Amino acid sequence: MADFLDISTLLEGALRIILLLIVFLIVRAVGKNIINRSFSRMKEQKNMQPGRVQTLNKLSVSVFSYVLIFIFFTILIGIFGLEIAPLIAGAGVVGLAIGFGAQGLVSDVVTGFFILLEKQIDVEDYVSAAGVGGVVEEVGLRTTQIRGFDGTLHFIPNRNISNVDNHSRGNMRAMIDIGISYDDNIDEAVRVLQDVCDQLAAEEPAIKEGPDVLGVQGIGESDVVIRILGKTENMEQWGIERKLRKACKEALDKNGIDIPYPHQVYVDKRQEQ
Amino acid sequence: MADFLDISTLLEGALRIILLLIVFLIVRAVGKNIINRSFSRMKEQKNMQPGRVQTLNKLSVSVFSYVLIFIFFTILIGIFGLEIAPLIAGAGVVGLAIGFGAQGLVSDVVTGFFILLEKQIDVEDYVSAAGVGGVVEEVGLRTTQIRGFDGTLHFIPNRNISNVDNHSRGNMRAMIDIGISYDDNIDEAVRVLQDVCDQLAAEEPAIKEGPDVLGVQGIGESDVVIRILGKTENMEQWGIERKLRKACKEALDKNGIDIPYPHQVYVDKRQEQ
Amino acid sequence: MADFLDISTLLEGALRIILLLIVFLIVRAVGKNIINRSFSRMKEQKNMQPGRVQTLNKLSVSVFSYVLIFIFFTILIGIFGLEIAPLIAGAGVVGLAIGFGAQGLVSDVVTGFFILLEKQIDVEDYVSAAGVGGVVEEVGLRTTQIRGFDGTLHFIPNRNISNVDNHSRGNMRAMIDIGISYDDNIDEAVRVLQDVCDQLAAEEPAIKEGPDVLGVQGIGESDVVIRILGKTENMEQWGIERKLRKACKEALDKNGIDIPYPHQVYVDKRQEQ
Amino acid sequence: MADFLDISTLLEGALRIILLLIVFLIVRAVGKNIINRSFSRMKEQKNMQPGRVQTLNKLSVSVFSYVLIFIFFTILIGIFGLEIAPLIAGAGVVGLAIGFGAQGLVSDVVTGFFILLEKQIDVEDYVSAAGVGGVVEEVGLRTTQIRGFDGTLHFIPNRNISNVDNHSRGNMRAMIDIGISYDDNIDEAVRVLQDVCDQLAAEEPAIKEGPDVLGVQGIGESDVVIRILGKTENMEQWGIERKLRKACKEALDKNGIDIPYPHQVYVDKRQEQ
Amino acid sequence: MADFLDISTLLEGALRIILLLIVFLIVRAVGKNIINRSFSRMKEQKNMQPGRVQTLNKLSVSVFSYVLIFIFFTILIGIFGLEIAPLIAGAGVVGLAIGFGAQGLVSDVVTGFFILLEKQIDVEDYVSAAGVGGVVEEVGLRTTQIRGFDGTLHFIPNRNISNVDNHSRGNMRAMIDIGISYDDNIDEAVRVLQDVCDQLAAEEPAIKEGPDVLGVQGIGESDVVIRILGKTENMEQWGIERKLRKACKEALDKNGIDIPYPHQVYVDKRQEQ
Amino acid sequence: MADFLDISTLLEGALRIILLLIVFLIVRAVGKNIINRSFSRMKEQKNMQPGRVQTLNKLSVSVFSYVLIFIFFTILIGIFGLEIAPLIAGAGVVGLAIGFGAQGLVSDVVTGFFILLEKQIDVEDYVSAAGVGGVVEEVGLRTTQIRGFDGTLHFIPNRNISNVDNHSRGNMRAMIDIGISYDDNIDEAVRVLQDVCDQLAAEEPAIKEGPDVLGVQGIGESDVVIRILGKTENMEQWGIERKLRKACKEALDKNGIDIPYPHQVYVDKRQEQ
Amino acid sequence: MADFLDISTLLEGALRIILLLIVFLIVRAVGKNIINRSFSRMKEQKNMQPGRVQTLNKLSVSVFSYVLIFIFFTILIGIFGLEIAPLIAGAGVVGLAIGFGAQGLVSDVVTGFFILLEKQIDVEDYVSAAGVGGVVEEVGLRTTQIRGFDGTLHFIPNRNISNVDNHSRGNMRAMIDIGISYDDNIDEAVRVLQDVCDQLAAEEPAIKEGPDVLGVQGIGESDVVIRILGKTENMEQWGIERKLRKACKEALDKNGIDIPYPHQVYVDKRQEQ
Repeated sequence: MADFLDISTLLEGALRIILLLIVFLIVRAVGKNIINRSFSRMKEQKNMQPGRVQTLNKLSVSVFSYVLIFIFFTILIGIFGLEIAPLIAGAGVVGLAIGFGAQGLVSDVVTGFFILLEKQIDVEDYVSAAGVGGVVEEVGLRTTQIRGFDGTLHFIPNRNISNVDNHSRGNMRAMIDIGISYDDNIDEAVRVLQDVCDQLAAEEPAIKEGPDVLGVQGIGESDVVIRILGKTENMEQWGIERKLRKACKEALDKNGIDIPYPHQVYVDKRQEQ
Repeated sequence: MADFLDISTLLEGALRIILLLIVFLIVRAVGKNIINRSFSRMKEQKNMQPGRVQTLNKLSVSVFSYVLIFIFFTILIGIFGLEIAPLIAGAGVVGLAIGFGAQGLVSDVVTGFFILLEKQIDVEDYVSAAGVGGVVEEVGLRTTQIRGFDGTLHFIPNRNISNVDNHSRGNMRAMIDIGISYDDNIDEAVRVLQDVCDQLAAEEPAIKEGPDVLGVQGIGESDVVIRILGKTENMEQWGIERKLRKACKEALDKNGIDIPYPHQVYVDKRQEQ
Repeated sequence: MADFLDISTLLEGALRIILLLIVFLIVRAVGKNIINRSFSRMKEQKNMQPGRVQTLNKLSVSVFSYVLIFIFFTILIGIFGLEIAPLIAGAGVVGLAIGFGAQGLVSDVVTGFFILLEKQIDVEDYVSAAGVGGVVEEVGLRTTQIRGFDGTLHFIPNRNISNVDNHSRGNMRAMIDIGISYDDNIDEAVRVLQDVCDQLAAEEPAIKEGPDVLGVQGIGESDVVIRILGKTENMEQWGIERKLRKACKEALDKNGIDIPYPHQVYVDKRQEQ
Repeated sequence: MADFLDISTLLEGALRIILLLIVFLIVRAVGKNIINRSFSRMKEQKNMQPGRVQTLNKLSVSVFSYVLIFIFFTILIGIFGLEIAPLIAGAGVVGLAIGFGAQGLVSDVVTGFFILLEKQIDVEDYVSAAGVGGVVEEVGLRTTQIRGFDGTLHFIPNRNISNVDNHSRGNMRAMIDIGISYDDNIDEAVRVLQDVCDQLAAEEPAIKEGPDVLGVQGIGESDVVIRILGKTENMEQWGIERKLRKACKEALDKNGIDIPYPHQVYVDKRQEQ
Repeated sequence: MADFLDISTLLEGALRIILLLIVFLIVRAVGKNIINRSFSRMKEQKNMQPGRVQTLNKLSVSVFSYVLIFIFFTILIGIFGLEIAPLIAGAGVVGLAIGFGAQGLVSDVVTGFFILLEKQIDVEDYVSAAGVGGVVEEVGLRTTQIRGFDGTLHFIPNRNISNVDNHSRGNMRAMIDIGISYDDNIDEAVRVLQDVCDQLAAEEPAIKEGPDVLGVQGIGESDVVIRILGKTENMEQWGIERKLRKACKEALDKNGIDIPYPHQVYVDKRQEQ
Repeated sequence: MADFLDISTLLEGALRIILLLIVFLIVRAVGKNIINRSFSRMKEQKNMQPGRVQTLNKLSVSVFSYVLIFIFFTILIGIFGLEIAPLIAGAGVVGLAIGFGAQGLVSDVVTGFFILLEKQIDVEDYVSAAGVGGVVEEVGLRTTQIRGFDGTLHFIPNRNISNVDNHSRGNMRAMIDIGISYDDNIDEAVRVLQDVCDQLAAEEPAIKEGPDVLGVQGIGESDVVIRILGKTENMEQWGIERKLRKACKEALDKNGIDIPYPHQVYVDKRQEQ
Repeated sequence: MADFLDISTLLEGALRIILLLIVFLIVRAVGKNIINRSFSRMKEQKNMQPGRVQTLNKLSVSVFSYVLIFIFFTILIGIFGLEIAPLIAGAGVVGLAIGFGAQGLVSDVVTGFFILLEKQIDVEDYVSAAGVGGVVEEVGLRTTQIRGFDGTLHFIPNRNISNVDNHSRGNMRAMIDIGISYDDNIDEAVRVLQDVCDQLAAEEPAIKEGPDVLGVQGIGESDVVIRILGKTENMEQWGIERKLRKACKEALDKNGIDIPYPHQVYVDKRQEQ
């Protein structure tokens, strides 16, 4: 460094800068190209929405560019012969502080990237994630917005989304449990309930499978529990379950089969002794 | 370093400092300019409040300036020929201790930045966050102040805010469950309740949708549960629910339909044996 | 290092030390001045108590001085030509061990600093924090002392304080729920209770808003729940609630309106079969 | 570095690059070969599905290649005589930030790798993992998709999968508890229930072991609990349990053995005193 | 390093070692002195027990000495011209492993230091900490020993102590809730109970404040709850509460005021229909 | 580095490589030998199964070899005069990312190593670990497979295993609690139950100690609870408990001692007033 | 490094190695001596078991030796003129991976060391730790084995042991709560119970203090709860409590004092209206 003012040093420096610039531009062009092409290929193969692909593409190019620019500048400063060590120290300390503080941000973006890429969540899906359930309003790189059924708008940082329970990907189950009394005939109750199921299945096009009476699911404290199971179109399960409950209740009433109240046997102390 | 007192070295040092100063000033001016312009563009595009944009703008400029000054000084010291290594060591140890201890602070500011930027919370919103619910009094970069409904003022460090449940972003649901007895006719009860709903919807302008009787939501131990669902203006849901409850109770009474008490069947031991 | 005993080296070293000392003294004076002035400006603007400002000011100056001294000494040792590398290694290992172990301490002080600065807690406030509720006896940089209502003195390291619920910042809510029987007329009960509220509001100057009967808050298993809501002066809410409860109970009794016991319907098995 | 433009330096650089390239190509070829061969050997030995082995093989080769390319480029830049220190600093800071943020991603892939390698989960298996139960639809390197029994599609990042409970690896237990009254003869009840078990075992080919009556599992508040245990074909356990419950209930009814309701002894206050 | 055997090098080394030794001794003496003096000053100012101050003083001197010796030796080795880098590497790896493993130890001592310094816990105090309650038997730098009321001796590593609830720092609250029946006159019951309180306050010198009847604390399912509150000498609260309970029960009995059993309203099904 | 093509440099390089190779081979041979011998010694001393020792031995040798090879190659590259710094940087970043992501894997193997070494778990043992109970099917270095009693196969990563509860290491306790009515004579009930215990102990060889009647374990709401305690052969405890329950129930019936139902005292409102 | 084959370099290397060896041997001997002596002094002072001291002594010497050997070898390699940087890199990466993975191991040993040193746990003690209770069978450096009362052998890694609850360090409390009816005279009941206590205290030598009747501990829904408290020899508390319960029950029966069943007041709907 003693010969800082030497011409050959200057020449060398200039040469290096030019070399660096060329390398930088080439790497940048090549990198962008590779990213763009891989995303356009992905779009064709996986049949993804153009908007979603574009978001991912733009993010990838941004990250790539920022990293490149950061490297470029630090190398540049090194070429000017300035001591690079302080920069390392400074960057190290700042980086550490930020690294710890902002890891959540990086974590958000990484998770968001994969939620978009793997199509785990679509806008308008009914999902449960991060302890919150509702209809998705927006999937961003940092936050996902879910509209709860009570009208609340939930902002969820993507890092909080670990398991995604997507309730909008296929037929849903309709299931009800009906309790009959110990004294009623199980076979007859099953027959009556199966008739109800068959009739409803015939009336409701939203029903895709069953519903069928499975049998004695449990013996409760005061009742014999009978389970009915079926499959319905997505989001129709609650409506079908409501209709099934009403129909079963009315059919059991008509056939004189009891849905029993809790029972208790009373033992009178005076007679026991 | 042997020729510390040499003139050429001094000259070289002076040259470097001047060079450094110039680079520093240029970078600072350019950086500030870029930040300011991107924020003023954001203000126009996203239709944000000037106060909020200014807070974010000032924060960005501050962070940028402090980092620059830090780098500037460490390079400067390096130029004076002083051993820079101890500084690295010192900064490293101090940085580590602080990095661990103060990461919460950085985390607060980063989260606060995004809460402001993404407009997740506005002053006067009714939100739930960090296990606390109430009306927002202030959104700062480090803490958010929420006034609970019982009058308590909650200070929440922003890092504690993960999910934000904003209850002030659109119409809210009004929902009540009414239990009728096993012996009552379901169809009639539904008709009576729907009448109540229709009348209330006509009277109350705060009701935006429904309310409608959905059907048999469940068969309880002693009652058939019927659910009523509607949408109201924001913050009016509780009032509407209260009116709906009163109206339903009175209508059922008038039509001789029971809201049943818990039932129990008594079996007398003496007769059983 | 071969020419350690050379005069020019010694001279150079002496020069450097003097230079370092001057820089050190200037930086220290300037830094202290800046800190002092910013705190005295803060005191004027934010109308803070002099004691609190002084604590924060002293802490800031201390931290600043210790960091400066640390840097000064490590640079000094470097100038004496001693190998600085072992120091780095030593400091690194010790620093790591301490950094992990003592991060809690740093975290305490950082949190304490902001609790004081943002006036989240004042002595004599009734607050809930870190799972503990009571009246604040002392707010320190490392620990906060809270006197629980049962007489216990709670020492809370500041790092444990995340959300601060300050119950001494404004009027508080007085709220009671009263259950009336299914058979009572809701309108009449509301009228009676509202009369009680109005009378109490006239008598008690501690009441700031209401209290008002909101309506039917819920339909319980055996009662219709009616909610009454008001605002009182801080710390008067419990007394007002007690008076409200007594007055409501007596008014309902006088008007022949029942606060119902739990009900149960008895079905006799012998007659059913 | 003074003789940057020297021919011998250039020559040396060229020689190094060539040497590096050769080493790089050899290492890459050898490494790929070793990976491929070890996987094909594993395929033969462990009798794994070709698709699964191919996924693992491709992943291993990719990781190996990326690491190699990364090393190659950084060495290359070092040969060009450019200061490598800034790169270290840059990579360090970026790496730290990413390392913290993206550790979840690495963790996903590592866990996914072992789930595939150890055949913990197969598509079509009924498993419980990460608090979610259902039938596996896809096992990927980053996420596993499980179809819940209610129709929900669960996306589970592999890192969330710690314990895997695989319910599709062998015969399953069918177990029911039946309560008889205190007054019934235990031996007779056991005999009746064992008859039911033997008959069902004869009728149902899905039953693999038992079912057998174990004895008095507990003495409840109002009943003596008798446990029946058997083994069935995988996924048939629920059906068998339902049939067992129905058969036991009917057999006990036929033999006049009570499944008792909760009992309570009533003491009349007036007589006690 | 080529001239390792040179005399001037040896001389230089010797000189450095002597210099180092002198610096070391001076720093050690000065440091010890400063520590000792600040502790003796603290003893006078804060009126602390000599034993406690001595423990803290000895700990501070030990830590100071060990750090100094560590630095001294590593510098020494550096002077002997041995490569110091491996030491750094070795210490780094070992330090990392230990740093992670033993951070608990450092954390124990740091917490213990502050528990002693801030007098949060004294031997013989009744405290709750780390989920354990009892009387303190020993407060050490690493562990605190608490004797539970059931005779168990709890060893608590200081790091587990976050909040300290010290129940031996001032008067304690005595509080009892008494339920009276719906039919009793509230004013009369309050008068009777207040008489009891006044009489007990006159008899018991351990009572420091009250006890006073606060009013209607709640309206239960079957009773009106009345709260009595007072202050007693430390550790006397339980005895006073027991006496208060007995006196209240007897006074209410004497005045014919009921402490009600749970009530239930029986509705007979036959008459309702 | 200027004299890269110099012969003496080449010669020196060659010499170094040979030296390195020799050191490498010696260290490897010596290390392997030491590991093998210590394991064969352990086998003899601790009487361990050969299979288990072999697994541990092979793992130890593998880890040792991989570390050695890694060191060898990095030194080799350093000898070739290639800049080693980039490698450090590269390895550092990759290592960090992997270190965070794959620490679970290392943790699995370390835990697995000690589970095998300390014989905490044997195949066929009935254990509870990581919230899962069942019979161990396989103990591997990374995962342990436990067959739950319901037939589920649990794959548990060893890192999840903290406490191991091994239920197959010695005799097990058989314990039952029997409630008798308040009116029965305690001494007589104890005598009857002790007779049952003695008779069963005589009949059942699986009983190793007791069973004995301990006395009045508690006074319940409606019964006096008497505890019986004994020791049985491993895995026989449930069978013995079942037999004990049946025998006690029958003996109490024969001697006219009641196992009481829950009691309740009925107070009639009309007479009270 | 150009003069690698130079004789003076070799000589210098040899000299350094010898110097290093001497330093190494001296440090090792001195260190061992210091450790041994401090442990033998501790044995005398603290009256510890020789076996326990030996375990701690051996561990300390092992750790000291391994660290010394590690340092010796890395310095040695450095002297041979081999590039030490790769070693640093290698050790760093490996160390990081292991450091994270094996920190549990270090943590086990550190905790185990202090459990032994502070005599928190002795073999045969009845302790609760890490959520497990039972009698200690073995205290090792890595795991502690506790035999649960049900016969299970618990292996607990020492790191899981935070609070140790040692139930074998002094007399234990015997405490029972007895409920008497609202109608019984409290003073008489207390007198009867105190008589029982005094008699038992006279009969049982295992009772060390009391037992005494404390007074009215609570007013339950249907009873007045009276508490009796005493101290017994270690491990005798359960037996004494059982005897106390039996004696109290029988004494109350003899004196006509009721242990009341739950009470309920019945309000008949027909009469109310």
